[in-house]
Amino acid sequence: MNLSLDSGAMVADLAAIAAHSDTPGPGVTRLVYGAADLRARAYLRERCREAGLELREDGLGNLFARWHGSEPELPAVASGSHIDAIPHAGRFDGVVGVIGALEAIRALQRAGFRPRHSIELILFTSEEPTRFGIGCLGSRALSGALSPEQLRGLHDSEGRSLESWRSEAQFVAPLEEVRLPVGSYAAFIEVHIEQGPLLEAELVPIGVVRAIAAPATLQLRLTGQTGHAGAVLMPERRDALLAGAEIALAVESAALSTGSPHTVATTGIFQIEPGAVNAIPGRATLAIDVRDIAAAPRDQALATIRSAIESICGRRHIEYDLHLLNADPPASCHPDVIEAIIKTCDDLSLPRMMMVSRAYHDSLFMASLCPTAMIFIPCRGGVSHRPDEEASLEHILQGTALLAHTLARLSA
Amino acid sequence: MNLSLDSGAMVADLAAIAAHSDTPGPGVTRLVYGAADLRARAYLRERCREAGLELREDGLGNLFARWHGSEPELPAVASGSHIDAIPHAGRFDGVVGVIGALEAIRALQRAGFRPRHSIELILFTSEEPTRFGIGCLGSRALSGALSPEQLRGLHDSEGRSLESWRSEAQFVAPLEEVRLPVGSYAAFIEVHIEQGPLLEAELVPIGVVRAIAAPATLQLRLTGQTGHAGAVLMPERRDALLAGAEIALAVESAALSTGSPHTVATTGIFQIEPGAVNAIPGRATLAIDVRDIAAAPRDQALATIRSAIESICGRRHIEYDLHLLNADPPASCHPDVIEAIIKTCDDLSLPRMMMVSRAYHDSLFMASLCPTAMIFIPCRGGVSHRPDEEASLEHILQGTALLAHTLARLSA
Repeated sequence: MNLSLDSGAMVADLAAIAAHSDTPGPGVTRLVYGAADLRARAYLRERCREAGLELREDGLGNLFARWHGSEPELPAVASGSHIDAIPHAGRFDGVVGVIGALEAIRALQRAGFRPRHSIELILFTSEEPTRFGIGCLGSRALSGALSPEQLRGLHDSEGRSLESWRSEAQFVAPLEEVRLPVGSYAAFIEVHIEQGPLLEAELVPIGVVRAIAAPATLQLRLTGQTGHAGAVLMPERRDALLAGAEIALAVESAALSTGSPHTVATTGIFQIEPGAVNAIPGRATLAIDVRDIAAAPRDQALATIRSAIESICGRRHIEYDLHLLNADPPASCHPDVIEAIIKTCDDLSLPRMMMVSRAYHDSLFMASLCPTAMIFIPCRGGVSHRPDEEASLEHILQGTALLAHTLARLSA
Repeated sequence: MNLSLDSGAMVADLAAIAAHSDTPGPGVTRLVYGAADLRARAYLRERCREAGLELREDGLGNLFARWHGSEPELPAVASGSHIDAIPHAGRFDGVVGVIGALEAIRALQRAGFRPRHSIELILFTSEEPTRFGIGCLGSRALSGALSPEQLRGLHDSEGRSLESWRSEAQFVAPLEEVRLPVGSYAAFIEVHIEQGPLLEAELVPIGVVRAIAAPATLQLRLTGQTGHAGAVLMPERRDALLAGAEIALAVESAALSTGSPHTVATTGIFQIEPGAVNAIPGRATLAIDVRDIAAAPRDQALATIRSAIESICGRRHIEYDLHLLNADPPASCHPDVIEAIIKTCDDLSLPRMMMVSRAYHDSLFMASLCPTAMIFIPCRGGVSHRPDEEASLEHILQGTALLAHTLARLSA
C-alpha cells in the first residue's frame, strides 16, 4: 500500500497543540484539566470529527476516537498517547504519539484502506504526575490499577479534589465506567520520542521497545534539629541535610549494585528547612524514584535503600517517615506486536533497533489490557521535559509511516 | 548605687517589638526595611525620645540614641544590638540587647546617676543576612569593612537594590557618612542570648564573652545536566544533587578534622533544580558557613572544603562557580571591658563563666572600632532562630542589671 503522509497537516497540528500553554514561553505547560489542556482537547476533538471518527470520553476525560472497521464487533487496534505537559516542558513528549496516530488514520483513509478491525485513537488523561502526584492517571484507571475510590481520594497540592477538577472540565460520566475489560483491544501501539540519547547516537530512526521500566517512588521526611550554624558544636548536631545527603548517595550506590545495567535511581526532590545560611537544617523532604525493566533488581535496590535509610538515620539520630507511593510492575511488550512492527520496518526499509523504555508511559498500563508495544523516534540530545526538547519532522514522519502501516497490518 | 529595673516596662517593650512581624505566628519575622522592621523602629524611637535621648540615624538606618554625659566631648560608652529577625524566628535574639540597653539607661536615669561619658544606645541595621545575603550589614559598614561602593552593589534575591530599599524606608543620608572613625567610643557592650546550651547546662546566669567566632561564607553553584529520571542510565549522569551531597558531607568532615573543637561548618542552603520526582537534578545552589574563634583552623577548613569541591566536581563532571562571600577575622574581646564586667558581677554577686561566642554579632565589627565585650544570658535548650526561642525574665533582668552597672562604671 502506498501511503502519503500530510506533513503540512502534522506540522500545523503540532503547532496548534503547542500554542495552548498555561505559561508563556520558552517551553509549554499543559496541566491536566487546566485551560490550555481543555483548549488543546477541543482542537483534537474537532480534527477527529473532521476525520469522521466516532468520539467517546470517559469520566476522567480519556478520549477514544474510533474509525469503524468492516467487522466492528472485533476488538479494535488502538494507538495514542497524552498531551499534558509538566511546567516549561517541550512540544513533543506525548503529543507526537497523538498527532501521529491521528495522521496515520487520515493517511490510511486517504489511501482508500478499509480496516477489518476498527482503528482507535486514544488520548490518555494526565500521563504526567504534576497535578495529582500520580503518573499515567488515565491509563492506570483504564487498566483497573486505580480504583474509583482511589480516584475520588486524589487531590492537588492545594487540596482541590480530582472530582472537583473533572466536574469543572465537564467530564461527568461515572468513574465506575472508566475501567476497561481485558481484551478490549486487539493491540495497542504508542509512538513516542525516546527521551534518551541512544537512537540519536546510533543514527537509527526507529526504536522498537521490548520492555517498559516502571518506577517505584519513595517519599521520605527527615526530622533532626535546627539551630544556629555558629552556636551548636559539630558533635551535638542532628543535621537533616547531612542525613539526606548520605541517603541520596546511598540511592545512587543501590542502583549501581543490583547487577542490572537497567536499574536507575534518582533523588529528584530534596528540600531542606529552614534553608538559611546560618541555620542548621532541621528537616528535609526527599522523593526517590527507582526503576528497572525487571521487578527483581528494582525491588532489590528499594530494599537496599530502605536499609540504608534506617542505618543512616539511626547513626545520625534523625527521625524519619518513609512512604512507598507506588511500585508498578514493569511490562514486557508483546511479541506479536513487536513482530508486526519489525516486519513493517523491513517492508519500509526503515533502520531500527530493539530497546527498552526507561521512562514509563501509558503503554505500561495498556500492556495489562491487550498486546502492546511502543515505537520510539529520536529526540535531539536525548533531551526531554525541557523547552529545548526537539524531534525532527523527518523522524516524526518516519515514526508515523511505520505506525500507519503497522496499524494496517494488524487491523487487516 | 542602688538600681531598680522596671520589669513591667521591659516586658511591655519586648512584647511590643514581638508584635511587629512580617508573618503570622508562631515565631516572628522582621526583615530589614520591611513594614514590621519599620514599625518596630518607630516604637523604639518613641521610647528613646521619652527617655530624653538625642537621636541620630545614618544612611543605613543604624540608630544612635545618646544620653549626654557631663563631659560630652569624651567618647561615649555604647551598648546595643539588632531587632531584625530571620523568618519564623524567636522574640529574644538581638531584641534583648536593645531593650536591655534602653532599660539600663532608664534605670540609671531614675537612680539619679549622672554619667561623665555620654551613654549611647545603638540599634544596628540588618544583623541577619536574610535580605541582602550579608550579616551585620550596619556594624560592618560602621567599621568600614563594607564600603559605600559595596553597599550600593547589594541587591536582594529578587534583584531589588539596597539603595531602593533604604530610600523607600526614608534613610537618605549619604552612605559616605556611615563609617565611624576608630576611637569613636570609649567602649561597647552587647547583651545577647547565648544561642547555645552551655549557660543553661551549667546553671550560670551570665556568660562573659572572651572571643567571637566569625563566619566565612561560601556560595557554590553546581551545574550538571538534567534529564528524565527513567531515561538516563547511571553512568551517563551528571547529577548536581549528588555532587552537592558529597560536598555537604565533605563540609562536615572538614570541620571535624581541623583539630579545633571550635570549628563548625554548615551547609545551610541547598536548592536543586528542576526539583521534580522524575527529573535528574541538573543544578544545585549551596551556601556554606564555616566558623572558629581563631582564623587558622577556620581557614584550614575552608581550604579543605575548596579542595573537596574541586575533586568531587572533577570526578562527577560537574561545573562549579564558587564565591567566598565573606571571611571576617574572628575578634577577641577587650580585657579592660571584660574586667569591668567581671568586677561588676562580683559587686552584684552574679555567678558568671567565661565563654566564646560561636555565633557572630555586631560586636565583631564594633571590636575594630573600640574596646568591646559581650554579656550572654541563657536561652532555653540553647535554641535560637526558632519560634520557641525563650529567655527567662529573671535572666533578662540579671543581664540588664549587669549592663547598667557596667555602663555606670565605664562612663563615670
